[in-house]
Amino acid sequence: MGLPVDFHFRNFSPVDGKQMYDYKQVLVVRSDLKMGKGKLAVQVAHAAVSSAENTRKQRKEWFDAWFGANQAKICVKVNDEKELRLLKGRLDEMGIPNSLIQDAGLTQLEPGTTTCLGIGPLPSETADRYTGELKLF
Amino acid sequence: MGLPVDFHFRNFSPVDGKQMYDYKQVLVVRSDLKMGKGKLAVQVAHAAVSSAENTRKQRKEWFDAWFGANQAKICVKVNDEKELRLLKGRLDEMGIPNSLIQDAGLTQLEPGTTTCLGIGPLPSETADRYTGELKLF
Repeated sequence: MGLPVDFHFRNFSPVDGKQMYDYKQVLVVRSDLKMGKGKLAVQVAHAAVSSAENTRKQRKEWFDAWFGANQAKICVKVNDEKELRLLKGRLDEMGIPNSLIQDAGLTQLEPGTTTCLGIGPLPSETADRYTGELKLF
Repeated sequence: MGLPVDFHFRNFSPVDGKQMYDYKQVLVVRSDLKMGKGKLAVQVAHAAVSSAENTRKQRKEWFDAWFGANQAKICVKVNDEKELRLLKGRLDEMGIPNSLIQDAGLTQLEPGTTTCLGIGPLPSETADRYTGELKLF
């Protein structure tokens, strides 16, 4: 197993334009919320664990292929809750495992605030079909 | 299942001083590295997923108790790599599931840089024995 990978560039090799990782997990954050670094990191971690577990149960072959390789993760952003829920709706329609995170609101945010969405892991090409236009966080 | 919980305060109720969550996952970050918000979030997510899976395999009763409740997570910091590795050594000696994250170094950091450590989920009282003195990130 290689080192875990995150990337703040698109998942294409600069050399030949091919996908660098066959599977990845996409972590989508609302950019309109004010969260400190630690708070944000924990919200994204909630999304990663929860969506990974959903994928392990619903699409074990995707989970296994990803977990046994670099567990590539990418963090991108949407403008607001509406965009996050629209994206979730499209994924649910296609049966793609995901997990929407609401904060318990103990600190910084109101209780029940929707903060981010974890997607997959899933095949990178499928991921890019739904999230390829989103900007890196 | 309640909402997922992070806390930027200690895991004690301000009312009666008792533990608020029986189990938690601790995510320990080096504070001497310069990482952007998204980069940091993904490193912490690596630690959360990897340590959760280790715990699921090694201490399923801890994982299940945590996953079925609020999946409480806390993000704390150490000063440098040495402190991170000392902490990991103490956990390994006690057989506490954890996961040390090295970055593949595609962006921002040198390849192989140790960035953070995921611990558990584990009983909150045990967690505080090893990490109770660490400052919140």
